[in-house]
Parts: sequence; C-alpha cells; structure tokens
Amino acid sequence: MNFNDFVDHYRNRVQGVLAGYLPKKSDKPDAFAEAMRYVALSEGKRLRALIVYAAGELFAIDTRILDQIAAAIELIHAYSLVHDDLPDMDNDDFRRGKPTCHKVFGNATAILVGDALQSLAFQVLSKSESDLLNSKNQLHMIRRLAEAIGIVGMAEGQYLDLSQDFQTLSIEQLDHIHRLKTGELFKLCVELVALASSTCTLEQANHLKIFADRIGLAFQIQDDIQDSVEKDKLNYLQFLSLPEANVRVEELYSEALNSLSAFGTPAEKLRELAKMMVLIPC
Amino acid sequence: MNFNDFVDHYRNRVQGVLAGYLPKKSDKPDAFAEAMRYVALSEGKRLRALIVYAAGELFAIDTRILDQIAAAIELIHAYSLVHDDLPDMDNDDFRRGKPTCHKVFGNATAILVGDALQSLAFQVLSKSESDLLNSKNQLHMIRRLAEAIGIVGMAEGQYLDLSQDFQTLSIEQLDHIHRLKTGELFKLCVELVALASSTCTLEQANHLKIFADRIGLAFQIQDDIQDSVEKDKLNYLQFLSLPEANVRVEELYSEALNSLSAFGTPAEKLRELAKMMVLIPC
Repeated sequence: MNFNDFVDHYRNRVQGVLAGYLPKKSDKPDAFAEAMRYVALSEGKRLRALIVYAAGELFAIDTRILDQIAAAIELIHAYSLVHDDLPDMDNDDFRRGKPTCHKVFGNATAILVGDALQSLAFQVLSKSESDLLNSKNQLHMIRRLAEAIGIVGMAEGQYLDLSQDFQTLSIEQLDHIHRLKTGELFKLCVELVALASSTCTLEQANHLKIFADRIGLAFQIQDDIQDSVEKDKLNYLQFLSLPEANVRVEELYSEALNSLSAFGTPAEKLRELAKMMVLIPC
Repeated sequence: MNFNDFVDHYRNRVQGVLAGYLPKKSDKPDAFAEAMRYVALSEGKRLRALIVYAAGELFAIDTRILDQIAAAIELIHAYSLVHDDLPDMDNDDFRRGKPTCHKVFGNATAILVGDALQSLAFQVLSKSESDLLNSKNQLHMIRRLAEAIGIVGMAEGQYLDLSQDFQTLSIEQLDHIHRLKTGELFKLCVELVALASSTCTLEQANHLKIFADRIGLAFQIQDDIQDSVEKDKLNYLQFLSLPEANVRVEELYSEALNSLSAFGTPAEKLRELAKMMVLIPC
C-alpha cells in the first residue's frame, strides 16, 4: 500500500471503529449521545491513530488490537479537545472547521461529553471479547494510558499551559508543557503498540518513544509557526525567530528519523507520517 | 469490631489509601496537585468505601484489594462532585462545609482536577504490583467501572438531571435519573467486590446489586427530604408528599434488607450501613 492509500485506508478504518463504540443514533437519539458522536466522529487528521497503525506494522500486530489502541487514543484526544475548548479553558469557538462542542450543545453537555469520552477510552482498552492480548499486558496498557493523561501527564500540561506567566517562561518550560500536553499522547501511541507486541525489544520501544517525542515537539513548533497570529496563547515564536523555529523543527525531525534507522524499510510509513506532520500541521 | 469502630477504622483507612495515591505536597507543590488533594481528601462520609469494605467481609477478600476498589470508587465520586458543582452545571459554592473546588482554584483547574481524578481511578484499579487479583477479573472490573460512569451510566444521569423539563417529568423518570446518577456507583461498589471474590456466586452478586440499588434510591429520597428547600433542583417532594416519601424510603430500605437475608450474620455491617444511609443522609 502506498502512503496516501495507507492514510485513507486507516483514517476510514478508525472512523468505523469509533462509530462502532459510540452510542448509535437509533439506540440513543438524545443530545448527549449526539454530542459524543459530533466530537468523536468529526473528521480529523487522525495522526495518533495513523502512528498506531504504522508502528503496528513493525511488529505484525493483529489489526484488531491496533483498532483498540487507536480508538482509545483518539477518544482521549477528542475528550481533551472538548474540555480545552471550553470558555473556562481556551475558549475556542471553532475546531476542525466546525463550531466547538459547547457552542452547539452548551457548556454542561460539553463537560459531560469529555468525561464520557475519557471513560469510553478505558472501556475500549479493557475490552476482552478476544484473547488477542495477554491480560497482564492489557492491564499494563490501561495503566500507562491512565498515567499519561493525568496529573503527571496531559492534564498537568493543560494546567501549566493555562497558568503560566508568559513573561517569565523559558523555552525549556515551554518544551516541558508541550511534552506533557501533546507529547505524552504521541508517545503513548507507540508505547501501547510496544506493549501489545510479543516481539518488540526494550531498545526498539525506546527508539519509538524518542521518535514520538521528537516528532511531537516538531509538530507543535510547526503548528505554532502556522498559527502565530494568536497572540494571547503560548507560542514558540515568542522565544524563537521564524528562521530559528524552522531550524529547530528540522533538527527534531532529523532526530525522529534517526531513531527509526534500526527498523529499516518496515518503518517507511512512520517516516512518511513524520514528514507529513512537520509539513501539514493540524 | 462494632459498627462505630468499623466506620471510624475504614474511613481512616481509605483516607490513608487515597493520600498514598494522590500527588504529595513535597513532590508536587503546585495548585493543581493541591486542588486534587483538596477534593479527594476532603472529609466525607465515605459511604461508598464503607460499602466496599462491608461487602468484602462477606467473602473474606484481601483488604488490599478492597483498598484498591474503595479508593477507585471514591476518586470517581470526587471527580463527579467537582464537575457537578461547576457553574456550568449545578453551580454550587459549598461542598462538605467547605468552598467548592472551583471557588478556591478556579473553573479551569476544577475541570482538570475532575479529569485527572477520573484517570487516577483507572490507574488505581489497574495497579498490578501484587498478584492478588486474577488479571482477567481485574480487566473485567476496569471495564465495569468504565461502563458505569459513562454514557449509559453516571454521566448520562447528570446530563438527564440537567436537561429535564421539570413540568413533564414522571417519578419513574426521576428514579431512572437517580439510578444512573448515583445508583450506578453504589451498585459498582458491590459489583467490583463480587468480581474480586473467588467464591461469590451469581445469585449472591445479584442479591448485592439489588441491595445497592434499593439503598441507593432510598438514600436519594431521604436526601431530598432533608434538602427540600432548594426549589430549582429536581426533588422527590415535587412528586410525593412528605408522608409518601417516607413510606417509599421505608419500602426501599426493607427491600434492601431482604436482599441481604441469605447472607446471615456476616452481612451485619451492610445492614448497619443501610440504616445509617436512610437516617443520616450526606
């Protein structure tokens, strides 16, 4: 499969998987369920899901396991966006070209939608209808998910983002915030794949984590370069000139690619994804 | 141990267990961690934890497993209170005699605290340092937790509570809302204990679920009887006269006690708890 076909195929696939886990319109026609679908099925780039499927190719992991991981992570991503967009947080009116959840369904419903998407992610990852996964590994995956999104992970990142004094922040602190706020979830994509694999070595897992860390940060800086008009938000261009920012993206992208070198040709999809992430931020 | 000692002992115990799971002041002195401690270590009645420990006595389950279950459920309860108290939801300024989380730490932090408490609950329940639990059962427990708090559980209950038209609501619909909003979590206490037990039969598990369902609803009605001054919230006294409400509490309490009859003396703590719940609402 060439890269464009890969992207189309797995975007469609994760969309179908998510639709299968969400409450159906026929079963639950109320606004709460509709709001969950509105958020979780909104057309996104599905970068995190694509990383999961691409990393899964390295270890020939059963696609149904990758479906579970990809869906759980996309649900977590969706929950974090809904809460981050709230008036009490970033107060964003649009997301992926559509009005944000709270603009359409109200703040209270948006809070509850985020809450329910988080628990749905754990429901998906704790599914056991198959014996595809070793139970101990599956528990480990759930534990890593819980750690990555809590007080030492994504939630802490969003807290720091909201509470920082822009005037006294250093670029190291900004890196730290983004590593927590978005990096943890990118890293989780490859960590969960590594845990699901029976062949992935510790060294390979570490290479993949470095890949996810570097490309996550590069993605964030690239996003800031595109987005630099919003002056009331933290942005790398408050610390770096445009040429400096471009150099930093290049460096991080190189480090990301280097970390894949030991994987050879099977990592081609991850390389293409990395390229896409630093060229077309979303 | 007599009942009062039991209550004191296990309230202290779950407090210590929770403190062990929460970020320490020495490690994380920031306001986010402080807000999590403020919410989760606030002195409550700890009814749900007490139900877990009391139900655990029926099957002689290792107390360390009960600690995990009790802490996870109290964390979920704490998260739901923080979010429910938000201005966009019930807009409550006080909780357990203290200013609510958002009054002290702001709305954004309160949203993130709730989010992080939810994920911490899953972290606690997916802990595996011991081999006390069979991994498959532990996965099942996590799955039940996730189901009970999401779109077909607690979150849906809160959504319905906020979105109902008081004028056209029936008492059956009010029962349904409370069964989702608070009943699911009471039921979860005994369900998780049943799943953790190697001896609990399906019949026993069903008896316990009926117990939790009936006493949960009785507790809610009793709470409404005490709380009937708040006219802008759903209240059973909008449907029942005071004597009718008292009769309903008595009936539900009897059904709860009946469901325990097969357990004999070992269920004495659960009976005492049931009595406490319909006499002293909290």
